[in-house]
Amino acid sequence: MSEGKILSRILAALPPSRAIVGPGDDAAVLAMPDGRVVATTDTLVHGPDFRLAWTSGFDLGWKSAVVNLSDVAAMGAAPTALLVALAMPEQTAMSFIEEFAAGLRAACDSVAPGCAVEGGDLTVSDTLTVAVTALGSLQGQPPVLRSGARVGDVVAVAGTLGAAGRGLALLFDRFRDAEGAPCAVDLTSLSDAEAADLSAQLRPNPPVSLGPVAAAAGATAMMDVSDGLVLDASRMAEASGVSVSIQSDSLGLDASSALTGGEDHALLATFAHGSELPEGFRAIGVVCARASSPVLVDGAAFTGRGGWDPYNDWDATRG
Amino acid sequence: MSEGKILSRILAALPPSRAIVGPGDDAAVLAMPDGRVVATTDTLVHGPDFRLAWTSGFDLGWKSAVVNLSDVAAMGAAPTALLVALAMPEQTAMSFIEEFAAGLRAACDSVAPGCAVEGGDLTVSDTLTVAVTALGSLQGQPPVLRSGARVGDVVAVAGTLGAAGRGLALLFDRFRDAEGAPCAVDLTSLSDAEAADLSAQLRPNPPVSLGPVAAAAGATAMMDVSDGLVLDASRMAEASGVSVSIQSDSLGLDASSALTGGEDHALLATFAHGSELPEGFRAIGVVCARASSPVLVDGAAFTGRGGWDPYNDWDATRG
Repeated sequence: MSEGKILSRILAALPPSRAIVGPGDDAAVLAMPDGRVVATTDTLVHGPDFRLAWTSGFDLGWKSAVVNLSDVAAMGAAPTALLVALAMPEQTAMSFIEEFAAGLRAACDSVAPGCAVEGGDLTVSDTLTVAVTALGSLQGQPPVLRSGARVGDVVAVAGTLGAAGRGLALLFDRFRDAEGAPCAVDLTSLSDAEAADLSAQLRPNPPVSLGPVAAAAGATAMMDVSDGLVLDASRMAEASGVSVSIQSDSLGLDASSALTGGEDHALLATFAHGSELPEGFRAIGVVCARASSPVLVDGAAFTGRGGWDPYNDWDATRG
Repeated sequence: MSEGKILSRILAALPPSRAIVGPGDDAAVLAMPDGRVVATTDTLVHGPDFRLAWTSGFDLGWKSAVVNLSDVAAMGAAPTALLVALAMPEQTAMSFIEEFAAGLRAACDSVAPGCAVEGGDLTVSDTLTVAVTALGSLQGQPPVLRSGARVGDVVAVAGTLGAAGRGLALLFDRFRDAEGAPCAVDLTSLSDAEAADLSAQLRPNPPVSLGPVAAAAGATAMMDVSDGLVLDASRMAEASGVSVSIQSDSLGLDASSALTGGEDHALLATFAHGSELPEGFRAIGVVCARASSPVLVDGAAFTGRGGWDPYNDWDATRG
């Protein structure tokens, strides 16, 4: 099939353009009424980031959208457009591509209504790869940086922590064949809690709409928790020149997963002491003066593993 | 090496940020003073789009930037920012990555001064892949679409036509080993003209600054010539509901390459009859009423091959 034919099938499955100039010209033109644009890009690569035995076309479209939408939200902005670059093996089925487009659409409609795919690129690759750029609008508000946390602020999160990491462990532990290669997921073998964890991994549902809400409520710092709470909180602490002190009893029954599990795309934010947290956020700790460690858990430096680094953590032989 | 260490080395080699919020947070924030942003994305994949035996890290950085900068220019806009997603094999040398960053920087400094890399993403992949998004500003002017060509307009181009295609043919014809695999380029074996063609392929130099110039001069339609003049002119003709009539004697000594060779990233534009062409543009034909074919060459429908489609043209076994 030619690129033109594939594109027309994809465009038919995508949300309708809202741009000044949408797909089909050399570039899109988008309104940014407050004179600024928020922009971020994130890539999913077959192998380290997903496996086709575990991830459907729909899942891939969904996840490649939401991991970027979440980064826009973490600045306090509302996502308005995606640009989607899809590089895929020549033998990729048209049905897979259409499912992928449907996943993009469902993710936009669900977590960022009004956001549409306004541009993209198709190419051939031996390795299925999706690179998405998300653009957003701050709607007149200042961006919320990770560097703004102040001593005394309340540390809060919105969204799940730990579930996506447990979901990944489920895939590795239960859905590989005798040689360690990924194999199809048997949903009937999962408890309700396990199914929820798997869904958090394959089709995460980050609280994108709460990004602008937190900004409007005066969040002093905010970021997306993509690599695990401890690792991301330490980045916020480093950027702000403070330490973040977390109470593990605020993290639910599985505090260990909540501290180190990645890919939940929760929002981590700080708010001035005494301010009312916006609905959807829950307090998990406080910002304190720079201590021996950027993150303290129950008052002590945290020494467990701190999140996901594909350069050190991905082992191609593992499955 | 960790992602953080690689990133710090890359950032040191990049042009300085000009953004409200540059690299290092969840997303960049860029000023768009006229309330609009131009956005485009294009991907280069090892195999169909480049070969490491032929393309240095610097070349890859350069080309991945300019193919996107050219798309921004083709809307009549000035590029202001790049987001660069780099997916690479684990064994990729740090020196290659630093050369890649130097190529990005040199391309911005050379063809779009003031444009900087304001965000990006690093991940591991079996297939070296670069997905770049370019953002730009229309500086108060309306975008120049490919759909605006009107009967009687002069058809003009800025930049080279055919050289990049001849450069690609040189690589395939002269720099493959007995098994057909790409091998190192021996520059001393090339004539000056051949070296220029090779440079047009590996390190294209599109007339990015002429995009806004053409817009200011009243270009009625404009697009980037990336897939060959005939194919791209036919796209402009289809979008505008007209035909484009090209005089082959305006295309230099090698009209055949100029008509079908891809990847030059020249600008194809139309201007009202009788208007003075901006410096850098040369007339190659006229817009006429819709004829039997969207593109006429010397008055006849063009029947030669019309450009590059990776879905049909890339043969992995070819080298």
